[in-house]
Amino acid sequence: MTEPRLSESKPWLRLRELAQASDAPGLRHLVDALDESDRIHSFARLTPEERSRVLELLGPERAADVIGELPGSHAAEAIEELPPVAAAEILEELVSDERADLLGRLDSGDAEAILAESTPETADSVRALLRYPPESAGGLMITEYVAVPEIATAQEVVGELRENVERYASYIVQYVYVVGPRGELRGVLPLRDLLLARGDRSVASLMIRAPASIRASAPRDEVFELFDRHAFVGIPVTEVGDRLVGVLLREDVDRSRVGRAEAAELKARGIVGGEELRSMPILLRSRRRLSWLSINIALNVVAASVIALYQETLQAAIALAVFLPIISDMSGCSGNQAVAVSLRELALGVTRPHELWRVWIKEAWVGCMNGLALGLLIAGVAWLWKGNLALGLVVGVALALNTLVAVSIGGLVPLVLRRLGHDPALASGPILTTITDMCGFFLVLSLASVSIARLAPPVAG
Amino acid sequence: MTEPRLSESKPWLRLRELAQASDAPGLRHLVDALDESDRIHSFARLTPEERSRVLELLGPERAADVIGELPGSHAAEAIEELPPVAAAEILEELVSDERADLLGRLDSGDAEAILAESTPETADSVRALLRYPPESAGGLMITEYVAVPEIATAQEVVGELRENVERYASYIVQYVYVVGPRGELRGVLPLRDLLLARGDRSVASLMIRAPASIRASAPRDEVFELFDRHAFVGIPVTEVGDRLVGVLLREDVDRSRVGRAEAAELKARGIVGGEELRSMPILLRSRRRLSWLSINIALNVVAASVIALYQETLQAAIALAVFLPIISDMSGCSGNQAVAVSLRELALGVTRPHELWRVWIKEAWVGCMNGLALGLLIAGVAWLWKGNLALGLVVGVALALNTLVAVSIGGLVPLVLRRLGHDPALASGPILTTITDMCGFFLVLSLASVSIARLAPPVAG
Repeated sequence: MTEPRLSESKPWLRLRELAQASDAPGLRHLVDALDESDRIHSFARLTPEERSRVLELLGPERAADVIGELPGSHAAEAIEELPPVAAAEILEELVSDERADLLGRLDSGDAEAILAESTPETADSVRALLRYPPESAGGLMITEYVAVPEIATAQEVVGELRENVERYASYIVQYVYVVGPRGELRGVLPLRDLLLARGDRSVASLMIRAPASIRASAPRDEVFELFDRHAFVGIPVTEVGDRLVGVLLREDVDRSRVGRAEAAELKARGIVGGEELRSMPILLRSRRRLSWLSINIALNVVAASVIALYQETLQAAIALAVFLPIISDMSGCSGNQAVAVSLRELALGVTRPHELWRVWIKEAWVGCMNGLALGLLIAGVAWLWKGNLALGLVVGVALALNTLVAVSIGGLVPLVLRRLGHDPALASGPILTTITDMCGFFLVLSLASVSIARLAPPVAG
Repeated sequence: MTEPRLSESKPWLRLRELAQASDAPGLRHLVDALDESDRIHSFARLTPEERSRVLELLGPERAADVIGELPGSHAAEAIEELPPVAAAEILEELVSDERADLLGRLDSGDAEAILAESTPETADSVRALLRYPPESAGGLMITEYVAVPEIATAQEVVGELRENVERYASYIVQYVYVVGPRGELRGVLPLRDLLLARGDRSVASLMIRAPASIRASAPRDEVFELFDRHAFVGIPVTEVGDRLVGVLLREDVDRSRVGRAEAAELKARGIVGGEELRSMPILLRSRRRLSWLSINIALNVVAASVIALYQETLQAAIALAVFLPIISDMSGCSGNQAVAVSLRELALGVTRPHELWRVWIKEAWVGCMNGLALGLLIAGVAWLWKGNLALGLVVGVALALNTLVAVSIGGLVPLVLRRLGHDPALASGPILTTITDMCGFFLVLSLASVSIARLAPPVAG
């Protein structure tokens, strides 16, 4: 009968009210009632202080569930604002790799304050994981696994699992890992084989010997390649002396891979220097975006200076000014298509960074055909508009040639950048457009200056 | 002592030689000796006919391994060239979802010819999977799972697993699925619980009742959301009447997600209408790229027609011609950054398509700051170059204002497209650049026309 309150259609307002009133039961009830999508959306509306206040009132277990859902930067901001004791309680509820991920996003001072309040096992596990780069095998692995000595029998292992059923409940147990006296990896025992085995069989006789494993220091690309090659659900991670230190799950590898593809998409559009969310401070967002824009404006000024060299030609045939931005933009489009195909072929492994000649030939064919098509189109437009065939020929030939230039540069630049050890997703775009702009402006204006008599006949002047 | 032969450094030449000589043992030896990356790269160099010849000589098992490594289009081309009997033998060696994926890429005539040579079970499984859209739960699931009746005891299930150990060897058995008399899903039984249970316990008493499941028709976004929310390794897939029809593994969900992120990156760079590899026919590549370019050139002509309206102003102050492409390009860069952040926030769920006002406010702040910075920069460049303060003011103010326009359009267009049910990754770019180009050209040239006396003083004419 009453009007629905604003806070019912906007749950974050209700979250805020309840947090301000320190109404812990009310908050728990609300958070449970929202679906995940509403929780993420509502938390995004809160300030970091409000977020941390809500988490504190929710209690460690529910707070950990929410933390697991939020974008990494929102989760880290909230944890940073919490008293270290409360933060440590929440971290205890997370899986080891999530925990390390989150602490890795904090200032080292904040992280240390929280670890000082954590259990020694948790602190050790986090410090161990943080020693590895975040996207290496060691940075992606979890430290929750079941290891048994090779002298145990099947029955003893089943007994061990039964006794510790609560501790292992949250582990994703599909394999039991078999280790030697110094913790060195000896084999893996699939749970299925354990189930089907006679109880008095020794683990050593059942296990798969010399199993595939990966060094903790292995970089991301090596990890991806290994999981591509094999259907592992998880693989043991070892340190010097084959010592077992963790398990790398496909789930976490794939999450890292999705993250990389998304980062590449952001970079393709000029978001560099870290993920941006609009909840971040304006100054930070502005500064990060400017870091990219200021490089681009410098390159743009260089490219456009070609026009300055031909000002007189342009003034005499001012209709060309309409076509300069078209040729610049279309060449950028054609070149970016070639960049996309090169990035994809490099990622798939069907093209290698040294195959410049092969890639060029393949691009040149498409460049010739598309250059011809686009050149004819723009020549027709120019001819129809001004009734001047020479104008049509100048812009048509310039666009045709520059399309060929653009796909050549676009196809080759990612390969060259990869060979030089740079990230091709990041730098290919600006390099491409600078060269194609310069070349495009030069083609239009130099062709125009040699045919200026036909473009701007004295009678029309 | 001898010169290394060309075919040793270029293994695809050796593959070709061995295929031509029908040297099956030699081929098997070579394929085993190459690592995965070399295999992918070498197969990419072969023609589809050569690829299929090599696969036929390798025998079904090795051929299936290779097929699993290749990009989907390369695998499909090779299968298409094979005699249906040979293709059917290779398909028998693949997992159900890979098999359906591959056949889904063929013409339906070719696919039917292969299924006619397959075992009835395989043909049924493929036809069942192909009934669902490729990226739905049904299209992504596998049909290899272990189902037991609820009246069975733990011991009986272990017995069943032991008896069929060979058949189940390739299954990823982490759960046993418990079904009622009409195949309806009743519960799931984790292998671990089966391992730890007494043998005479009934499956019904051990299983997790009313387990999470997903309809086969569920679209990709629903699948992603479910796996985001829960830590499932796999989830049962059901049809009408709760009938169990397959299992959806996280591995396959994540692969689909990586595919989507990669497709978005390709679209951001203008590769639309299907993935391109340079091994595809030139005409197809050219046509697909042109479909995108021809839309762009039309939009470009529209945008540049603004310049045509101000030809006289431009002719009087020709120095402006240098700045038109700079303002067009820089606005595109600024706007694309806003597009990237909107796409990401929509994907994360922290922004919703109706929040236009909130997004605009957040973008406007950054737009004002970056517009000011870039405007001052370009104004300084123009002033220094020509010693004309009015020129600096015109281009500086135009770039500052147009940056604000660009981030506003860039931030909002993805939200509006999503609300209208379109793919924002695809159409945001061209819409953005068309509007910002028109607006940028208009700003520069209309500001110039009102201050033309200062830009082109009569003494300089």
